[in-house]
Formats: sequence, C-alpha cells, structure tokens
Amino acid sequence: MNWSWVLMAVLLACGGLSWGEQGLDFPEYDGMDRVIELTTKNYKSVMKTHNVMVLYYHEHPGSDAVAQKQFEIEELALELAAQVLDDLDDEDIGFGLVDEKKGSVVAKKLGLEEADSIYIFTENEIIEYDGELAADTIVEFIYDVLEDPVEIIENDPEVKGFHNIEEDIKLVGYFKSEKSEHYLAYVDAAEEFHPHIKFFATFTPKVAKDLGLKVNEVDFYEPFIDEPIVIPGKPYTEEELVEYIEDHDRPTLRKMEPDNMYEIWEDDIDGEHIIAFAEEDDPDGFEFLEILKEVAEEHNDNPNLSIVWIDPDDFPLLVPYWEKTFGIDLGSPQIGVVDVEDADSVWMEIDNDDDLPSADELEEWIEDVLSDEIDPDDDDDDDDEDDDDE
Amino acid sequence: MNWSWVLMAVLLACGGLSWGEQGLDFPEYDGMDRVIELTTKNYKSVMKTHNVMVLYYHEHPGSDAVAQKQFEIEELALELAAQVLDDLDDEDIGFGLVDEKKGSVVAKKLGLEEADSIYIFTENEIIEYDGELAADTIVEFIYDVLEDPVEIIENDPEVKGFHNIEEDIKLVGYFKSEKSEHYLAYVDAAEEFHPHIKFFATFTPKVAKDLGLKVNEVDFYEPFIDEPIVIPGKPYTEEELVEYIEDHDRPTLRKMEPDNMYEIWEDDIDGEHIIAFAEEDDPDGFEFLEILKEVAEEHNDNPNLSIVWIDPDDFPLLVPYWEKTFGIDLGSPQIGVVDVEDADSVWMEIDNDDDLPSADELEEWIEDVLSDEIDPDDDDDDDDEDDDDE
Repeated sequence: MNWSWVLMAVLLACGGLSWGEQGLDFPEYDGMDRVIELTTKNYKSVMKTHNVMVLYYHEHPGSDAVAQKQFEIEELALELAAQVLDDLDDEDIGFGLVDEKKGSVVAKKLGLEEADSIYIFTENEIIEYDGELAADTIVEFIYDVLEDPVEIIENDPEVKGFHNIEEDIKLVGYFKSEKSEHYLAYVDAAEEFHPHIKFFATFTPKVAKDLGLKVNEVDFYEPFIDEPIVIPGKPYTEEELVEYIEDHDRPTLRKMEPDNMYEIWEDDIDGEHIIAFAEEDDPDGFEFLEILKEVAEEHNDNPNLSIVWIDPDDFPLLVPYWEKTFGIDLGSPQIGVVDVEDADSVWMEIDNDDDLPSADELEEWIEDVLSDEIDPDDDDDDDDEDDDDE
Repeated sequence: MNWSWVLMAVLLACGGLSWGEQGLDFPEYDGMDRVIELTTKNYKSVMKTHNVMVLYYHEHPGSDAVAQKQFEIEELALELAAQVLDDLDDEDIGFGLVDEKKGSVVAKKLGLEEADSIYIFTENEIIEYDGELAADTIVEFIYDVLEDPVEIIENDPEVKGFHNIEEDIKLVGYFKSEKSEHYLAYVDAAEEFHPHIKFFATFTPKVAKDLGLKVNEVDFYEPFIDEPIVIPGKPYTEEELVEYIEDHDRPTLRKMEPDNMYEIWEDDIDGEHIIAFAEEDDPDGFEFLEILKEVAEEHNDNPNLSIVWIDPDDFPLLVPYWEKTFGIDLGSPQIGVVDVEDADSVWMEIDNDDDLPSADELEEWIEDVLSDEIDPDDDDDDDDEDDDDE
C-alpha cells in the first residue's frame, strides 16, 4: 500500500499552504500502521492494551477493485485519526477493524450489532458513532467521549454558558454533593448516553436557584426550547432516568451535523423526514430558524413531529446534490418533507421576494404533512415534474 | 494519474457509511479533469469562458517525489471542488493553476502577487483566499463569493439576524433607495472587501431607527463588540469608505477559522500573536470568552491589541499538535503569546480548579505582554523548560 502516505497527506496536509512561519503546521503522516484487524486470536489482548478502543465494524469489502479501494480509504481515515490521537499525553487510544464476515465471532463476543458503525469502548461505556467517516469529525467526537459524562456548573457565567448550548438535548440536576447517592445514579445514567446527550449538575444552591432546581431534581431540555421539563418522581434511580430519556430522545426540532448525520437520517418517522434548510449566519435563515423554534415550542408535546434542521454551511459539498435531488434553491430557507427511501420530496412554496411564512402558515403546512395531505409519495405512479409544485 | 479517483474518493465519499436510504449521498468523483493549467497561450480564452475563475497560484513543485505528490494532492482537492460546483445551475465556475515559475508571465498579466494563494476572479472583483486548501472550506468560501456583496435588511427579525452575526467585521448603512448615489458608492466599497467583511444596508426607516442610523450613515461593527462606530463624514465616497475600512480591519478580538487561518496568522503584530483558546460549547470556555469580549470592548481603541480566538472544536486535527508545541492542555481555556517564527510561547497561569481570571487580571496580563514584560523570546538563549512558568 505504498500510496497510503499520499492519501493520509490528502487528509492531513492538504490544508497547509506552504508557509514559513510556525504554529499552524498540520502533521504529516509518518507511515506507521496503527489500525489493527481484530481476530479471535488477538482481540482480547488488543482490547486490554488500550484504555479506549475505537472499532470500525465494517461490511466485508467486495472483491472488485472499487470496493477494495473504498475500504482502504476508510481505513486510512482511521489511520489518520489514530496518528493524531497518538500524540495525546494522558490517553492510550487504540483503533481496530472488525470484518462483518471474517470477524463475526469477535463481533458477537464484543456485542457489535450494526455493521458500518464505529464503536468506541471506554472503561465504562460502549458508544456508537454514526456520523461522517472523516478523520476530523471522528477525532472531535472522541474528544467529547474523553470528557467527563457530567459537567459541573459552579457560577453565574457558567449558567450562561449552559443556556448557550441549545443544539443538543441537555439535562441538569441539583444534588447535595458529589457523594450523594442520587448524584451517583445520575452519573450512571449519564454514562449510558454520553456524549450524545449533555449532562450537567450543580452542588451550589445559588446556581440551583438560578436554574429553578430543587434538591435532587433533574430538568430535561430539548434542543432550541428554553423551558425545560422537570423529570417527575424525584429522587430518581438510574433506571428511571434512563427510561425517561429513552422515551424523550427524539426532539421536536433537531440539528443534523456531520457527527450525527446517519443516526438522524435513519431515525425517520413513517419513512419520512421534515427537513428545514436554513443558514444561521444569514439574516433570512436566522429569521426562519426563529419561526421554526416558535413552532417547535408550540408543538413540543406532539411525539409525531420532529423537524430536522440542516444548516447548508455545515455540508458545503452536499449543497449542489441537495439542490438537484430536491429541486430547490438553498440560497434561501426551505422546508419540505422527504421520503427517505427514494428521496422524493415536496417543499413549501416560499416566495423569495415576499416575507417568509409566519409561524401560523408554517404550522398549517406542518399539519398538512402530518395528516398526509402533503405527501412526497403522491406522484410515485406518474413520474412527472410536479414534485415541488405543491 | 490512475490513483487520482481514489484520492478524490477520500475527500468525497469517505464520509458515507454504506447505507440503503437516499438523501445524504456524497457525490463520487467522475474522473473528469476540470482544473486547467494556465499558459500564455490559453489564459485569455480560459478566463473569458467562465464567469467565475478560481486560480491556484502555486510555488513550482520541487522535483522530488514527495513535493510532486503533495502538489498533485492539492490539485485533487481543487478537482473535487470543481466537480461539486459544476453541478450548480446558474453559475459557470472554472478552476485553473498558475505555476510561479512556468507561469510567471500569466501571473504578472493577471496581477497575482502572493504564491500559494487562491485568487477568485468574478465579474467585478479579484478575491484572495488564504485559508485551508481543503475542498469543503474552499467550496463554502466560493458560495459566499457568489452572494451579493451587500445584503438588505428589511424587518425586525432580520435585524436580530444581523446582530446575531458577531464573528465578522460588519457594516450597515441606511440609504434612501437602491438608486441613491451614496448607496452605489457603498456597494462599490463592499466589492473591495467582499466576502471577508460583511456589508448590510437598509432602505426602511423603521429598521434604520432600530439600528440607530441616520440617512446616508454607515456604522462599523468590530467582531464581538456590540457598540458600533459611526463612520465620520457622511455621505461618503467609495474611496472614503475603503480608506476607513482599511484603517480599521484588524479587530481587537478576532476568530481564526479554517477559511482565514493563514491570513490571520500572517497578520502578526511585531512577530507575535496573543492567542486565546476557548471552546464556546463548554461552560468554562464560554465564560472565558465573555471575559475576553469584556476586555476587548474596554480596549477597543488600542491599535496594538488584537487577540486571536481559536475554538479547538474548529481544528480537531491540530489539537494534539498545539498541546505539544505550546505545552498546554486545551481541555480548559488558555491565553498566551506566541512568537510566529519559532512558535515559542508564554501562557497565562490559569488554575484549573480555581475560578477563571477576572477581566482585571486578564487586562493586567495583556498589559504585561504589550509592554514586553511577558515575552516568548525571553529564554531563547537558554533552551530550558521554563517557557510556561511565567
């Protein structure tokens, strides 16, 4: 594989315009093989050597050259991540491959279930990663994994920081101390969802007051919704917390990002997604997002409603593909319903020169989608061009 | 170059875990050569064929295999960007290469000055890009280039969207109409800085009142500073605006991002940068950033102060490199002064368990840096380990 260093360099170094000064040098690949194929013979010892193991459980690559190369490329993205993380001082992070066909015994022993997923084994948790298989996104995710599952809030500015996080599901609890059994149950629950869901806690009465928390109480915040829900029945056992979170882990409005894109896409509702495209850094997009948040707040109790917000800025390489596939212009905000099987879609008519739809108009449109009056499958028989003329 | 498709695929498709559903498919490279080498013979006709031309003005690649391959890799990042943008309906975007040695005549004719930069030629502007040479970052930047240089604000939610943009230098003006000569001068000035600096305008008296603007007045906003400066001497000619902006284009606090990283790094002050690392999505990092903004607001009139804020989340692959080079832990906020030549650095002592420094303490530290009492070059003679023990 003598071209491997080249590929690594693509990922590593192609960022670096050559340049005399120091301080921004992207590392270059050193050619070392760090990603190990796990077999029945070696998996036990390999898993023991590292305190964190990142396993790519992959489909058996086909025998044709394209599939082979595609797989080598994925392997190289992992090699790159492994090299970068090799430089961390306090963590020993190993990378491995498990082949769905050749490694079926190992997969079973380790409890790997979904092929083409990455599983991260830490001391206490097995975490599934279902995002982009790109080195930077994976490395960023692993940093999150390495953080404590519960972050402590100690003062007023940190409360502001807590409120500033609006794109994730987050929980915050108030406990007497680090030794409180209820806090320990909370930490155990956090480990089940970390780092996909953010857990915070405070031991400071003033902070608890600011957050409106009574002792041993945990508040659950949906993304983009200011008002939390008090989880009923305090104090909670680990199981009660886990059950509550599992029952509420599909938010009314959620943001698709590179590190969760496949996870979200696979979590469709009756084979469909309501997708909203809005660029937050654009006044129009920002306005549309405000309207979306208003609608989400209003319909927060509807379990059948989950709007997926995509900021096109997060996926520049997919923009022309989406514009073609969906027949829309992503230069302005869009909302539509997409069939996840064939990518058929229907989009709300938003007049570019006019004002954006009001919250009421948006709600009406969403109700039509939920009642199947607007349905991307309507014209599956006659394959005409009317998809976007709803 | 039969491995080229493989490289493209790294960049294009390695994100895609194989997957039955549709709607998120990264495009795969089609093998077509779209990036053209410009010569004295072809450059005129090539430049005429496209309404936007993206030129990579590169150093002549050395004759060794490593340099050659590095260059091919850069070329392939551009091929990928070219393919993705080829799918845009309304724009015809060409990509070209100009070799510093072989293409010196072409470079001179086209006015290319700094090698290892990307120049984007549009109908009215020549724009220099000095960010990461990665397909997604370049494509994203080109979308910005394609937008109008001045965005119109029409209503209250858009005013909120305007205020939400805090990471860029932005200007907003109030004019009687699109035909106003003062507005036209403003647009001409905007074209000089687009898309690096954001320009907004309104023709709506109510919006102007909200923004505190008198007619023909332009306000200048530094990043992260709420209070704008009224550009003196309204109404302005294009030249007056350009001069004012050029005199004020180094903000007190600025954010390094992939699309401006080299541009910012090269704009050092006496060979040094004050660098602040803070993760905005972390309560600690958020708090530190608030303190930084307070200090920046306080010292907004000091032309010798420009703090570069880096959110480690934006550069996951560089985190271990920075931690090693600077001897710091990026798990918590850091501020230091870095010599751009040798990457020597001195970092403020921030006790992890303690509170973050107050604005006053931070100001004191910054004053010590500005008066050279804290200086990364202090120990250049004795190469000991005391760099971080200020």
